[in-house]
Amino acid sequence: MEALVRQALKRHQPQAAGTGPGAVNGVGVATDAPRLIANISARHAHLSQQALDLLFGPRRSLTVLKPLYQPGAYAAEETVTIFGPRKQMISNLRVLGPLRDACQVELAFSDARFLGIDAPVRVSGNIAGSAGCYLVGPHGGIEMSEGVIRAARHVHMNQGEAGYYGVTEGEGMRLVVDSAQSGVLDDVTVRIGADVKLEVHVDTDEGNAVDLINARKVTLERTR
Amino acid sequence: MEALVRQALKRHQPQAAGTGPGAVNGVGVATDAPRLIANISARHAHLSQQALDLLFGPRRSLTVLKPLYQPGAYAAEETVTIFGPRKQMISNLRVLGPLRDACQVELAFSDARFLGIDAPVRVSGNIAGSAGCYLVGPHGGIEMSEGVIRAARHVHMNQGEAGYYGVTEGEGMRLVVDSAQSGVLDDVTVRIGADVKLEVHVDTDEGNAVDLINARKVTLERTR
Repeated sequence: MEALVRQALKRHQPQAAGTGPGAVNGVGVATDAPRLIANISARHAHLSQQALDLLFGPRRSLTVLKPLYQPGAYAAEETVTIFGPRKQMISNLRVLGPLRDACQVELAFSDARFLGIDAPVRVSGNIAGSAGCYLVGPHGGIEMSEGVIRAARHVHMNQGEAGYYGVTEGEGMRLVVDSAQSGVLDDVTVRIGADVKLEVHVDTDEGNAVDLINARKVTLERTR
Repeated sequence: MEALVRQALKRHQPQAAGTGPGAVNGVGVATDAPRLIANISARHAHLSQQALDLLFGPRRSLTVLKPLYQPGAYAAEETVTIFGPRKQMISNLRVLGPLRDACQVELAFSDARFLGIDAPVRVSGNIAGSAGCYLVGPHGGIEMSEGVIRAARHVHMNQGEAGYYGVTEGEGMRLVVDSAQSGVLDDVTVRIGADVKLEVHVDTDEGNAVDLINARKVTLERTR
């Protein structure tokens, strides 16, 4: 199975005038709308140093395969195999860097159901009481007692962009997708950070449902 | 992999008053809204008699495993294995009855990508020039030169229900899903038939994207 994080849709288009509180209406008048990018995150794993050592060997470090859109984030050359409780497995699960304090595996529901894992929808980092799995690498295997989630769809933005949209940390926004299979994804969680770029992350099920890869237009809207 | 068509969401709830042209507003006033059911169709195959004979042996017939919601339709006990061009396979692909004149395989994009099949979005039955695959059963295998599609999400309804919604054959409606991962699926193709029951069909990617199985409320709306 292919597990490389797909960055399929990089749309550098301004939003239509009038869709945000800072927009200026009027023909020929430029807006200050930030550039919106919506990317599909395929299933992947974040690892701790301890897990990396157990899976790939002592004192290992990750090797950068490809930088991701967010500054400092990258797809690593390293991949692992994930097993669920029924011993179904998915190989070539991509590891994303940099290393984290805790291991976390992000799956689409399609992946989780295949593996027999009941992954809850969680904002990344909130893994207490989530599902477990087994990971196997070339050096060894580990059991994760928790950390397997379906990442809640979300949008990274800085404080200025949050001001533009008029939203606050943790609230839900709406992603409107115009495609051959158009649709709207609500409950896109706002995640505000200092050194992030404006980017919506959805999983493969969500991207597939609205044919995001072939979208004609993507718009982010405040919902309250 | 589990391939049984899931009939996960059988909601026998009337729509909210005022959502359809025949609805009557007012507290305590009953509406004539038809009962809306939205079901997730997992990947499956429709077979011809000729294909059934080649896959399962001469003069075979399908065995009913479970009736589906539409009158006369059923999940059969028979399953096949599907291969794409890269020899990736999915076993236990459920066959749905009754037999048809032409073979057709309906996959979600997640399934198609796993198999390496470029399945186009098509209304069921419109398979000219669609993707091919290999099917294998206990008696033999066949090559389908076409017939592999992602079924366009659609809603079956009779003429009376079409009148209620004010829609005509082939037009697109909007499915509004209220859940923990709310969303809207546009481009739900209207399919009018004489002996059908009102039912929306989406695939697993679409159902997963809006967490349809755990939906609090589902509403069908005209879009023009």
